[in-house]
Amino acid sequence: MNFGSDNQAGVSAPILDAITEACASGVASSYGNDVWCQRAEQQLADWFGQPVRAFFLTTGTAANCLALSALAQPWQAVICHAQAHLATDESSAPEFFTGGARLLPVQTASGKLLAKDLERTLAQLPSAPPHTLSAAAVSITQSAENGLVYSIDEVSALSALAHQHGLHLHMDGARLANAIAALGCSPARITAQAGVDVLSLGASKSGALNAEAVVFFNLELARHFEHRVKRAGHMASKSRLLGAQFCAWLQNDHGVAMAAHANAVAQQLAQVLQAHPSIRLAWPVQASQVFAVMPTALLAQLNEAGVQCYDWYPSSLPPGFELHEGELPVRFVASWASDAAEVQAVATLLQR
Amino acid sequence: MNFGSDNQAGVSAPILDAITEACASGVASSYGNDVWCQRAEQQLADWFGQPVRAFFLTTGTAANCLALSALAQPWQAVICHAQAHLATDESSAPEFFTGGARLLPVQTASGKLLAKDLERTLAQLPSAPPHTLSAAAVSITQSAENGLVYSIDEVSALSALAHQHGLHLHMDGARLANAIAALGCSPARITAQAGVDVLSLGASKSGALNAEAVVFFNLELARHFEHRVKRAGHMASKSRLLGAQFCAWLQNDHGVAMAAHANAVAQQLAQVLQAHPSIRLAWPVQASQVFAVMPTALLAQLNEAGVQCYDWYPSSLPPGFELHEGELPVRFVASWASDAAEVQAVATLLQR
Amino acid sequence: MNFGSDNQAGVSAPILDAITEACASGVASSYGNDVWCQRAEQQLADWFGQPVRAFFLTTGTAANCLALSALAQPWQAVICHAQAHLATDESSAPEFFTGGARLLPVQTASGKLLAKDLERTLAQLPSAPPHTLSAAAVSITQSAENGLVYSIDEVSALSALAHQHGLHLHMDGARLANAIAALGCSPARITAQAGVDVLSLGASKSGALNAEAVVFFNLELARHFEHRVKRAGHMASKSRLLGAQFCAWLQNDHGVAMAAHANAVAQQLAQVLQAHPSIRLAWPVQASQVFAVMPTALLAQLNEAGVQCYDWYPSSLPPGFELHEGELPVRFVASWASDAAEVQAVATLLQR
Amino acid sequence: MNFGSDNQAGVSAPILDAITEACASGVASSYGNDVWCQRAEQQLADWFGQPVRAFFLTTGTAANCLALSALAQPWQAVICHAQAHLATDESSAPEFFTGGARLLPVQTASGKLLAKDLERTLAQLPSAPPHTLSAAAVSITQSAENGLVYSIDEVSALSALAHQHGLHLHMDGARLANAIAALGCSPARITAQAGVDVLSLGASKSGALNAEAVVFFNLELARHFEHRVKRAGHMASKSRLLGAQFCAWLQNDHGVAMAAHANAVAQQLAQVLQAHPSIRLAWPVQASQVFAVMPTALLAQLNEAGVQCYDWYPSSLPPGFELHEGELPVRFVASWASDAAEVQAVATLLQR
Repeated sequence: MNFGSDNQAGVSAPILDAITEACASGVASSYGNDVWCQRAEQQLADWFGQPVRAFFLTTGTAANCLALSALAQPWQAVICHAQAHLATDESSAPEFFTGGARLLPVQTASGKLLAKDLERTLAQLPSAPPHTLSAAAVSITQSAENGLVYSIDEVSALSALAHQHGLHLHMDGARLANAIAALGCSPARITAQAGVDVLSLGASKSGALNAEAVVFFNLELARHFEHRVKRAGHMASKSRLLGAQFCAWLQNDHGVAMAAHANAVAQQLAQVLQAHPSIRLAWPVQASQVFAVMPTALLAQLNEAGVQCYDWYPSSLPPGFELHEGELPVRFVASWASDAAEVQAVATLLQR
Repeated sequence: MNFGSDNQAGVSAPILDAITEACASGVASSYGNDVWCQRAEQQLADWFGQPVRAFFLTTGTAANCLALSALAQPWQAVICHAQAHLATDESSAPEFFTGGARLLPVQTASGKLLAKDLERTLAQLPSAPPHTLSAAAVSITQSAENGLVYSIDEVSALSALAHQHGLHLHMDGARLANAIAALGCSPARITAQAGVDVLSLGASKSGALNAEAVVFFNLELARHFEHRVKRAGHMASKSRLLGAQFCAWLQNDHGVAMAAHANAVAQQLAQVLQAHPSIRLAWPVQASQVFAVMPTALLAQLNEAGVQCYDWYPSSLPPGFELHEGELPVRFVASWASDAAEVQAVATLLQR
Repeated sequence: MNFGSDNQAGVSAPILDAITEACASGVASSYGNDVWCQRAEQQLADWFGQPVRAFFLTTGTAANCLALSALAQPWQAVICHAQAHLATDESSAPEFFTGGARLLPVQTASGKLLAKDLERTLAQLPSAPPHTLSAAAVSITQSAENGLVYSIDEVSALSALAHQHGLHLHMDGARLANAIAALGCSPARITAQAGVDVLSLGASKSGALNAEAVVFFNLELARHFEHRVKRAGHMASKSRLLGAQFCAWLQNDHGVAMAAHANAVAQQLAQVLQAHPSIRLAWPVQASQVFAVMPTALLAQLNEAGVQCYDWYPSSLPPGFELHEGELPVRFVASWASDAAEVQAVATLLQR
Repeated sequence: MNFGSDNQAGVSAPILDAITEACASGVASSYGNDVWCQRAEQQLADWFGQPVRAFFLTTGTAANCLALSALAQPWQAVICHAQAHLATDESSAPEFFTGGARLLPVQTASGKLLAKDLERTLAQLPSAPPHTLSAAAVSITQSAENGLVYSIDEVSALSALAHQHGLHLHMDGARLANAIAALGCSPARITAQAGVDVLSLGASKSGALNAEAVVFFNLELARHFEHRVKRAGHMASKSRLLGAQFCAWLQNDHGVAMAAHANAVAQQLAQVLQAHPSIRLAWPVQASQVFAVMPTALLAQLNEAGVQCYDWYPSSLPPGFELHEGELPVRFVASWASDAAEVQAVATLLQR
């Protein structure tokens, strides 16, 4: 019963096969010049329905923060949601990679960063350059840290407003596959066609080992990017590891299929949790994460019985959500490797 | 006939098996808290005969530059050889990771950075703080970029002098296994016991996929290191990839055995090259690399016939080495995957 | 009628005399080793009633951000008020000087950052190192950006809580003299004795030309500081300029006397403004700044009639303060050079 | 007998008058928007015979390093002479301001960085991006740290070659006035017209207090510069201090006249020194600095008798210059405030 994090799951068989095959296939060019990386970039272009420049990396923090470094000067700011992984779980990596640009985290009623939130934020931003910081970019997470999914319209409206103000739009797609599965749309519709300029695309959380990519739809922004990757120590020598994973992950939408599975398990789990009289869901369950509020004692019981899940930050709750005495927020994440039996086991525990 | 680089070779079977097993083994803790990383750290402690703190990474640049960031303040300097990989092939990553510390590359007669070189360098270093930079550390590469191997006495003398001046000693061990194989000594003798404070240990160049470690013998220096790793985006989520590789690489000195093989092939290749009337060796061949000086036309012939090897920087030649008209330096690197047939094929080509 | 900023005023006669005398007095040591700087450091020690280490600089941004760089590692955070000059008017200098540490701006009901605000902030701070940032320091501004003055008890309570959590306390004293004048206490009582570890002390806003200092009460924190100053290009060669200003500013509490004058003018101005039916004061006037809310049209009239003052950020208003249609916040700053006639002139304008 | 440094001299009367007048003249705009700064920029445009963008600063380190930050990306390099002040006396400020770009210090036979030196350096620079660093700019010091003066032809040849390779040319003009005086040419001829893109112009070393400027001849490079200045804490609030100094310094070539005086004193001093049987000049004396090699004992005698001058780095001697047992290099700097009597006193001492 592991709902700790989708990054604790293992690696899917097709992806592992691809790694194995690439590793065992003798000499190959290094530093991204191998055939797997080249093929993966082409597959991404096909997936997104337009030319892309793709850079393959091993961590989501590197993908996010390298991407931002291509968007913001060190004296500029990047607007994001207050719960953005960028802002809460990546140490000061955004500052490190950008050379000192600043995040402007915004708390919102909806749990997403919508066009109206951006509008309000920009309107309130003091403007007395060079004393104040101007905004250079907006970053959203799809699916979001609270498990919500931005609609195509929401992303399009946000990108339109951002572009109108000269800002670029970055999408943290560590769990983009879950959003694609949830929306049932093409990858292109919710990214490039919705106005995203740069995407951090994660495969690690839906079946891959350690495979992340920065995908530029706005190709001009990719200028200099290889220098940024290199000097951050993120240019893998045996880059076939990364290219091979993406090839397999993209093949027949394997990654999205696994994400769809995770989403389905999350729905089942949500129903099971919701059925318990002492448990409330904090956010609608739209992708692979379930945020539940429950008594501390109940969490302790679950943990003791072998359910892996984490107590979460109260600041992650919807604005105005009232936490009763003795309650706390708990995060459950379903993964490609979760199965119905695990949910059933939780149900049984809760029925005791 | 691939002598391009040992990072173009594939992955050895035992290491690939270990990756496969780790990936297929279900859920596991992430971010270095998995059993493979814990086991690998313990195996390293055994290997080096003393307690260590080890951090597992995917690239040598990250290992080197993160290590330096633990040694030098941003207003200090790190002394290294003029041909150090750090100084020549890692972009400005040293500056990026250290927050702006400076490398002081030193050209030497021997091709290594010996105690006498350090002594001379320190004597000449202007000292008018805070206007001038003081040296905080020395970094050497073992085996070196020119294929030379430091003796135990050389490293010990260097560390003694460094410590006497309050400097720490870093060793770039991207090819440490080749040096261990060449010296026939224990790993401890040429590192911790010879006074090395921090080691960048590379497995990628002798059989692993992408597996590097920063190994602290001076445990106090490891303080804060996890923060440095995290904010540089180098904390892998599914860290089992890294731990598993090191476990297999260390098991029965598998990595050193492969390095020994590479060294042996390099010796054979050196003999073949040296036998040719138009080829001179630039440096004695002590580990896995062969630096030959040859006519441009001959290199072109070899390349055309399928020999992969690179023309190299004239600045890498021994001081005073005279390059004749039409000659250029060429680097050949043997790897765990090189075989005698490849050397034989080169020999045949050269005999035409 | 200039109430634009106290940094638009000229230089007081005693300070100008001191500059002139120092400049005209022939050769002198440079880089802070001159007698004026030495004397100024000693005078500061006397003023604050304990040994100090003082570094003299030309700008408040440099003083603040260099001070923070001595307190926080690049992967740590500094808690400050949401309206802190640091956070709103110094570009991304805090990130630049600290190598990427993060400000955590806190909005408060009182307009100051009090112990209870710190307590709440620390309690809510996610703690999952190395993914999250830990707080290293607290920074408050005295007198604050909204013109409020922290009491000795408030600073003492804040420092006690900060120290209890292992945090250092920095005070941005760009207008400390105004606070000292308002409190009528000794400089020591509201700084060193109230638990401040490092002070940015500004003289420029009360009569000096460009003279700021970083004053360490916690002497251990001054280690390495000269390196930070030098590599930021803030070590003036003819440092006598800085030492001489501080000597004169401290002499007979000249700076505080001028600040007291500014405070008095601000009180008069506040009364004049408050008497107008369309003007409300946003904050109590405790030092030299007056924040008034007035109709845009009225501000336009004043500006046209030659009153210099600036419309200000709505975000600077007290939480819950309701801005009516057509109103906006306006900042007036009195300086050592302001005089009663200017206030009278404003009064006359408002009575029309 | 102070020949320690021209930054130990006081301030000339016209400049001091200008400071006094500006300080005493009531309210003025701050942050560079005052009339003195505006006037100074216009005077610089007149001086250099073309439009310029000028930014006024207090230190030479800030001027140099901010200028470089506008020329080089963090993953690029700046070529300079091995004795450049930038490389030897400004801590790691170049790295700090540029975000980690690297200096490539070049030792030369002539003591200057000439076109042929640049050509050789560029030819030897390894080029394997993104692993290696490409050069973005060249920086020379005029007059140089060893007291030599670049001719117009030398600068023109260097800039032509630099531009041909896509590199910008920066001139560290901390002592540009001495070079102008020595060459007897217009300021424009040796800077803008000779192909300099950005100039650090120092007034502090020839009569001003603390007044340096970054002067852009290539106006496009000035984009964003105010942000760089601000976030480095170098935007003075009462900027009139800086503008006023430059106005007076430029007026009737006051600064150049003072530099000419310093040059003349240096010539006299050189003759006095050279006449002594135990003293040799290390470099021809072309501007205001005299580098002499003398016995340690003789230096001690001079110092004891009140002559201020500094023993200097042996690495500053011309390549191949042989230092005899017991000898050391000594630097003497003449300033605007030096007088013939001081030289005479040295002569008397040496004749004993």
